[in-house]
Amino acid sequence: MSNVQEKKAVVLLSGGLDSTTILAIAKSQGYTPYALTFRYGQRHEAELRAAKRIATAEGVAEHVIAEIDLRMFGGSALTSEEHEVPKGRAEGEMSEGIPITYVPARNTIFLSFALAWAEVLGAKDIFIGVNAIDYSGYPDCRPEYIEAYRKMANLATKAGVEDEGELNIHTPLIDLTKGDIIKRGIELGVDYSVTVTCYDPTADGAACGECDACILRIKGFLENGLSDPAPYQ
Amino acid sequence: MSNVQEKKAVVLLSGGLDSTTILAIAKSQGYTPYALTFRYGQRHEAELRAAKRIATAEGVAEHVIAEIDLRMFGGSALTSEEHEVPKGRAEGEMSEGIPITYVPARNTIFLSFALAWAEVLGAKDIFIGVNAIDYSGYPDCRPEYIEAYRKMANLATKAGVEDEGELNIHTPLIDLTKGDIIKRGIELGVDYSVTVTCYDPTADGAACGECDACILRIKGFLENGLSDPAPYQ
Repeated sequence: MSNVQEKKAVVLLSGGLDSTTILAIAKSQGYTPYALTFRYGQRHEAELRAAKRIATAEGVAEHVIAEIDLRMFGGSALTSEEHEVPKGRAEGEMSEGIPITYVPARNTIFLSFALAWAEVLGAKDIFIGVNAIDYSGYPDCRPEYIEAYRKMANLATKAGVEDEGELNIHTPLIDLTKGDIIKRGIELGVDYSVTVTCYDPTADGAACGECDACILRIKGFLENGLSDPAPYQ
Repeated sequence: MSNVQEKKAVVLLSGGLDSTTILAIAKSQGYTPYALTFRYGQRHEAELRAAKRIATAEGVAEHVIAEIDLRMFGGSALTSEEHEVPKGRAEGEMSEGIPITYVPARNTIFLSFALAWAEVLGAKDIFIGVNAIDYSGYPDCRPEYIEAYRKMANLATKAGVEDEGELNIHTPLIDLTKGDIIKRGIELGVDYSVTVTCYDPTADGAACGECDACILRIKGFLENGLSDPAPYQ
């Protein structure tokens, strides 16, 4: 049974720390979450399993796993076997230029599928866990990119032509440090033990502890006086 | 062997009349075309076969067929079994509101894959056969949508951060009538006999002659004093 007052939101859920936090934030703001996860030629299935567990635990209205194979275009450590994930880098090194783990147009593709689903659902709200602080090297994590996407999306869809209601793209983490994100999630009761952030986890989802993503995550927990509850190798 | 002067362009190729014409236009402007076609849960394979034949005939540098299943979100005659393709409508009826053959966020998704490939190739140019005249009911065929997409795309990618060269989205058909498009294509030597435009073709690719797309296409050939060389049922 649907509630006429229901506010549906499409939430991009990778199974990582950030997207799990935005799912909790969307719920705390009264949205009924529809979780969207992508199988896009990652090296590992661990984060997909994490996404499924989180979607179930959080009681989303629906969880769609979209199959897209970005490997057909090549060009990134996360989707190609040709490159190695960099490990043991200091934070200063991470922000120099665009990381080789960057996937071409990834957020643009992800948001476009979210937009399609939002239109079908009649949802006016999309949540994405982009962060401009810890991932300043990714062009598609910047606020000016998100704002340009929002403008485009409102012209792209029926909503922009026929309805009064504008489509919103929510980026509640965009200005937060990793420590602040974890603080907010813990306030909301997020169980971070099942989330997978690592760029190079084992088949069981144990993190390497040495890639850029692990280093930032561990530091974020330390800033809250906590140790990461997720498994490491 | 690659030519340093080579101008690469990603060309969205559906196998229809419009996209086949833009492929010829891109070539006539000196671009090396990389053709991108989507298998997106269409009811029929005929247009995919047409796209393959056209890509081969035109000698594209590479032809990628991307598999995406938009049916997971439902919501359109072209991707769902739940609706019937409307037939026998007068032109006036076609432009009333958004057609039920509209696929949510389709061009946004297609352009996003093109953007990813363009970034990997180092291409600064994307060609898409949108048309604001005969398809005025589609929000994502309007010039203001394309311009908003271009702005977003330039913020989304490495090119927008590191390079001087802006990414361009070419829409050479946007202001043309179907008759004008066919005239331009015939000047460029396009063989329209292999293109498939129909929303509801037979397995062999024979057009129905009665859907909106067929009616506009037949009229376009008539305006040039020609009959359509493609097969009809």
